[in-house]
Amino acid sequence: MKKVVVIGGGTGNFVVLRGLKLYPLDLTAIVSMADDGGSTGILRDELGVLPPGDVRQCLVALSNSSRLMRSLMNYRFENGGLGGHSFGNLLLSALEKVTGSFEKAVEEAGKILNIKGKVIPITTHQVRLKMVLNDRKILEGEREIYLSQEIDQGYKTIYLEPYPKVNPRVLDEISTADLLVIGPGGLHTSLIPTLLVEGMCEAICQSDARKVFVVNLMNRKGQTTGYKTSHYMQELVRFLGKDVFDHILWNEQLPPKDLIDVYATEGELVENDLKDGRIVGAQLLGPLAQENKKDLIKRNLIRHDSKKLAQELMKIVDHL
Amino acid sequence: MKKVVVIGGGTGNFVVLRGLKLYPLDLTAIVSMADDGGSTGILRDELGVLPPGDVRQCLVALSNSSRLMRSLMNYRFENGGLGGHSFGNLLLSALEKVTGSFEKAVEEAGKILNIKGKVIPITTHQVRLKMVLNDRKILEGEREIYLSQEIDQGYKTIYLEPYPKVNPRVLDEISTADLLVIGPGGLHTSLIPTLLVEGMCEAICQSDARKVFVVNLMNRKGQTTGYKTSHYMQELVRFLGKDVFDHILWNEQLPPKDLIDVYATEGELVENDLKDGRIVGAQLLGPLAQENKKDLIKRNLIRHDSKKLAQELMKIVDHL
Repeated sequence: MKKVVVIGGGTGNFVVLRGLKLYPLDLTAIVSMADDGGSTGILRDELGVLPPGDVRQCLVALSNSSRLMRSLMNYRFENGGLGGHSFGNLLLSALEKVTGSFEKAVEEAGKILNIKGKVIPITTHQVRLKMVLNDRKILEGEREIYLSQEIDQGYKTIYLEPYPKVNPRVLDEISTADLLVIGPGGLHTSLIPTLLVEGMCEAICQSDARKVFVVNLMNRKGQTTGYKTSHYMQELVRFLGKDVFDHILWNEQLPPKDLIDVYATEGELVENDLKDGRIVGAQLLGPLAQENKKDLIKRNLIRHDSKKLAQELMKIVDHL
Repeated sequence: MKKVVVIGGGTGNFVVLRGLKLYPLDLTAIVSMADDGGSTGILRDELGVLPPGDVRQCLVALSNSSRLMRSLMNYRFENGGLGGHSFGNLLLSALEKVTGSFEKAVEEAGKILNIKGKVIPITTHQVRLKMVLNDRKILEGEREIYLSQEIDQGYKTIYLEPYPKVNPRVLDEISTADLLVIGPGGLHTSLIPTLLVEGMCEAICQSDARKVFVVNLMNRKGQTTGYKTSHYMQELVRFLGKDVFDHILWNEQLPPKDLIDVYATEGELVENDLKDGRIVGAQLLGPLAQENKKDLIKRNLIRHDSKKLAQELMKIVDHL
């Protein structure tokens, strides 16, 4: 059975894992620990736990339990002191308190959710993501970076504080992988943070695995404005030290014109400007829910279809 | 297999169920829905859910899952907006929201915890326990009644508002039971509230099951000050309409003198003043944890031993 290791965090990881789960693969999700927004941020601040949100999404993606259990994990309380917390985040935080270890918590939650594969936090140290912009302004925390509109003006550096050691299990997974999948996901908030952990870039570069980069569908205004595939690659190579990717999976499907207009204030579709043979153009868009379209709810309206994405990734796996 | 139905709420039910779970019995816990204190009260007020706390204790008592899962259910968050909430209460409340039904939530939580037997809420209506004291002062809510020091001055009435219909499944359980166990538990806050649900007293009186009352170990100052076994029976008969009990299980074991002194400000041991043959005197005290004794932590220091209690109840079951 081929071993596929997916590196990232949040919704991007969710989509990739949800699709790959349907195939006979040895699956591992390596999850960024930089998240500090929303429910996750409150739990970090108030309870001193490690960030549960991205791990929760990966666990749900790999879960073989009932639809009810998956709904439960993503259920968000609406009122009072619990307002905004997703139940799955509370499960992970309570398990961390009871077991005394976030890794053990993830393992136990994985049993409760009957997951296929493994979910591994990239580090077990408490870290904050920080970015120094060209004008020397410092953005503190993943949330602040996520909300910034100034990143496309350029930044001096981005780092995790304190500089964290990688979880040794992550190195084992990467060194024995047949395929490494990076992306899709927030470039500065999910993907690059995984490369800022001590030992990660070396591990990826030294791995014999095939390496795929799944390019985001849309740019994010003020962050990756006008980025094309080459810009995404440049940013990753800046941290990795060299261009290690064997395949670049890029969506060539156009959404309906009116939907692009709806998104115009947020960002535009990522275009491809690379001519090399590594580019795999594919139709990767998920179906559009008409009711959402009517309500002009922009968030996640243009998104990857997990099955189509997995089909393209499996074409690569099948040729290994 | 004999069918044993345990009626009550909270810690009393927990002790009985935990002990009986070790025997080959068809076990059902019928749980009061009057609780409105602490974490449970906040969840009722903020989320509009039914009270999860007593149900949680019964589920944990009947759980065949790991010690870790049981610890998780009883884990209380310590800080922030989550402070004071037990994880199991949050599980039940989130499940109620996701399934749209408290009964379904209890059923699903029972699956997660791999319980032996059934846990059934006595009613699925939102109710408040109220008490009118002899001086016409009204105590609103189970918590206020629990904290009152004036109840032993006498009360005119105690009732649930609005007057709730019994959960039909409860009637089925009671009518097919071989043994009904009432108590131990807070007389006015756990036991009597179960008799205030429409249809409960008739169901108990009409049931062919043997009926056991397990008398509390200690009186509660200001509530049951100076009560002896006869007073407990009088209070129950006041609501049931007649004395239906076949056995009265009473603890005759004395705790160490210094421990009685520690408790003196809270209440005294319940003495037996009944001469009839229904009284079963037994050694029912649990072991004393020396470290607790040293710290003079009074809560639950003198408590029933679940195994000894179950042994006595099984003597009755074995003669059915």
